[in-house]
Amino acid sequence: MPVRPRPTLRTMAKAPVLTPRADDFPRWYQDLINKAELADNGPVRGTMVIRPYGYSLWERTQQEVDARIKEAGASNAYFPLLIPQSYLTKEAEHVEGFAPELAVVTHGGGKELEEPVVVRPTSETIVNEYFAKWVQSYRDLPLLINQWANVVRWELRPRVFLRTTEFLWQEGHTAHATYEDARDYAARIHRDVYADFMENVLAMDVLPGRKTVRERFAGAINTLTLEGMMGDGKALQLATSHELGQNFAKAFDTKYLSKDGRQEYVWQTSWGSTTRMIGALVMMHGDDDGLRVPPRLAPIQAVVVAVKGDDAVSAKVREIGDRLKAAGIRVQVDDRTDTPFGRRAVDWELKGVPVRIDLGPRDLENGTAVLVRRIAGGKEPVAIDALSELLPRVLEEDQALLLAQSRERRTGRTVEVTSIEEAVEAAATGWALIPWSVLGPDGEARLAEQGVSVRCLVAADGSVPDTEDQPGNVAVVARAY
Amino acid sequence: MPVRPRPTLRTMAKAPVLTPRADDFPRWYQDLINKAELADNGPVRGTMVIRPYGYSLWERTQQEVDARIKEAGASNAYFPLLIPQSYLTKEAEHVEGFAPELAVVTHGGGKELEEPVVVRPTSETIVNEYFAKWVQSYRDLPLLINQWANVVRWELRPRVFLRTTEFLWQEGHTAHATYEDARDYAARIHRDVYADFMENVLAMDVLPGRKTVRERFAGAINTLTLEGMMGDGKALQLATSHELGQNFAKAFDTKYLSKDGRQEYVWQTSWGSTTRMIGALVMMHGDDDGLRVPPRLAPIQAVVVAVKGDDAVSAKVREIGDRLKAAGIRVQVDDRTDTPFGRRAVDWELKGVPVRIDLGPRDLENGTAVLVRRIAGGKEPVAIDALSELLPRVLEEDQALLLAQSRERRTGRTVEVTSIEEAVEAAATGWALIPWSVLGPDGEARLAEQGVSVRCLVAADGSVPDTEDQPGNVAVVARAY
Repeated sequence: MPVRPRPTLRTMAKAPVLTPRADDFPRWYQDLINKAELADNGPVRGTMVIRPYGYSLWERTQQEVDARIKEAGASNAYFPLLIPQSYLTKEAEHVEGFAPELAVVTHGGGKELEEPVVVRPTSETIVNEYFAKWVQSYRDLPLLINQWANVVRWELRPRVFLRTTEFLWQEGHTAHATYEDARDYAARIHRDVYADFMENVLAMDVLPGRKTVRERFAGAINTLTLEGMMGDGKALQLATSHELGQNFAKAFDTKYLSKDGRQEYVWQTSWGSTTRMIGALVMMHGDDDGLRVPPRLAPIQAVVVAVKGDDAVSAKVREIGDRLKAAGIRVQVDDRTDTPFGRRAVDWELKGVPVRIDLGPRDLENGTAVLVRRIAGGKEPVAIDALSELLPRVLEEDQALLLAQSRERRTGRTVEVTSIEEAVEAAATGWALIPWSVLGPDGEARLAEQGVSVRCLVAADGSVPDTEDQPGNVAVVARAY
Repeated sequence: MPVRPRPTLRTMAKAPVLTPRADDFPRWYQDLINKAELADNGPVRGTMVIRPYGYSLWERTQQEVDARIKEAGASNAYFPLLIPQSYLTKEAEHVEGFAPELAVVTHGGGKELEEPVVVRPTSETIVNEYFAKWVQSYRDLPLLINQWANVVRWELRPRVFLRTTEFLWQEGHTAHATYEDARDYAARIHRDVYADFMENVLAMDVLPGRKTVRERFAGAINTLTLEGMMGDGKALQLATSHELGQNFAKAFDTKYLSKDGRQEYVWQTSWGSTTRMIGALVMMHGDDDGLRVPPRLAPIQAVVVAVKGDDAVSAKVREIGDRLKAAGIRVQVDDRTDTPFGRRAVDWELKGVPVRIDLGPRDLENGTAVLVRRIAGGKEPVAIDALSELLPRVLEEDQALLLAQSRERRTGRTVEVTSIEEAVEAAATGWALIPWSVLGPDGEARLAEQGVSVRCLVAADGSVPDTEDQPGNVAVVARAY
């Protein structure tokens, strides 16, 4: 007779709230998104409604990313949603890449439009139209612009947060006097904005690399990417930074007068990160009980819960909340004691709030509360007076733990291979590393037939390669969302 | 021979940068928007490109308004841009109001859509579709949601910032258990979010009032408004807060289970403020030299300018900048000494930065700088060491001065009248107050024929009337943007 695992207190105590990850990862993902109240599907296919808790994760993301973008010298601006269709066709590769995904407005103000306009899928074209006006001389360069906006790309196989018909993002657009300056700026954004945010705030292990020609942004001469390994071993592209060369500059005649008096085309970059990062957060850190939000991102780092209805308890949870707030912790008080404690506890677990502080009448007598840790696990009574000092340390421990778990997953599920067959096999459970000299564009095409892609190229020393054919380049191969 | 005014140093020193307001107010406005680099017209008729300086005004607006909205208990969320056309038709007055302004997407992903979708002109319909799912019982109420988003309304007579085909805004949407709770919340937003922000941050004198039935939001049972008097005496509607009654709840079947176990329709509000506020800022505080930004809003409160190229001067302006930043002042350093000082000075005047601190080599020797005040006017040498203490006081003085000037304008240009003819005459230069019992809906229609409208109704004691026909109500009548 097979030995069945002994039921633990946890499994005895409650039925699973979510489909277990091991049973069906995509269903677990959708379950979590709905039950943690992150988002609902929208009425138009592929769109989504971002609910307040999901949006609060995005607001924190915006704050952190925006601060880094400004630190990198860029200023925010806003370009129109509606772009004349003719703009899109000016850069040949660009239109080829985006034409199949466009939403087209044909009627406005009750009349058919003379020229249809597209809802922006990205803004390189309209940005260049204005850069061409604003840039006169080398003194106007570099021109470093970012915008926070929505974009629409008609999706055939939408999945909430990961690939939606409308998504929210920031898109940076810059113009530089030289190739080198543009290249360095694209690399700076890739490193100091995206990689820094993902590692140090999202607690995500991310792999920086260079896209192959096949995977490059439509219209770019180089795309830098950050790839993350999700809980099921698949890859997700988390943010990209593009060198556009002079492609758009030539299409839109974006020129400047150089120091020695010549008209030159500018060199450009563009770079973006999206609400997809919320989906990545779920698939990177979520477990069978719900989301686990890294403390540095968390809109709610600690929730102080009144276990039962009682005026003294309610007053005390509010007092604890105020004290923690004064200690710089983002805190919420939950004294909705007309809802059963168990239901609220499950809900806070689903939402992945790092620390829960439970307080009941008996705790109050003892001057203690129960500290429940969502990330490291465990619960223990602690003196109420010790909380303000204890919590910042606990939160930093949890932050480090999530990053370490994320690193371990990638290390443990990445293998070195030397053939396409081995790469495909490895991609069933994780990532494969294969010399680019062995794989090459032909091998990449063969992989694609089996739904496996080259996520990026990495140099022999682990850095981002300067060129695709740099000797020693390694291709990172995986199935991807 | 007529006496010509003696030329002042100012008028002798430079040709006007902008069309003078007295010559052509609308052209002055457009000039200022362009030359202060606030915005450009977009390629699709009626759209605009908000340039970095203009956008930084909007970012500060967002910070201040968002904080007040959160203080009022609402949470941010995000609803889709694209709305099925059928949703719009569910509330009869609403569709009638918005149908002529819709942008319609008929093609997506290269195919004609089965049902056309509209680009949101406002989100009451799609919000209600989800409120109907989220609201189950009285415990879920009030539901207080806000979103920051772009909307599209096809404009026949667009004007940058004031009336654009696409604009940015926040739109709040709430659901309540009772009529009273919804009414009070609409009033709270009107007072504690909008009026408070406009008076205390934008330094704008604003008149709170109630819209007439004719001017009400399409689908509302009551619209509260804030009206401001622009530099030319015309009115601008600055923000509105609507009681929606149960109109949308009935159209979308948004019900809740009451405490005593009955299914009841919710009572709702919606409320919005837009990038129009940037246009209002210009028309309210601008003068013939450019914009004047109220210090509490100003993204740059003080600019420290190196008059001439000189390493010691450059080092000192940076040092002053750091010191002012440490004193909590939003400061920018301008050491672009390869551009003539005069051109930069004009540019900072155009942009309306409240305080300029000029530093040249001779000032450096004396340990002084020249303090140039954009709002109160005047320039004087001050000890560099005194700046950190002096500036906060100067900035608060300027803030108060702008509000006082705005108040004086309205007081000076508002007259009480008793006939429609007098009201029309008064509206040529300012506002008219006329008893609503004298004017009434018929008089309102006659005014409209002459391009004059009732901006709002105000009660006899100056408060916002509870009903349209409350005895003693006064109609505020003006031409409007």
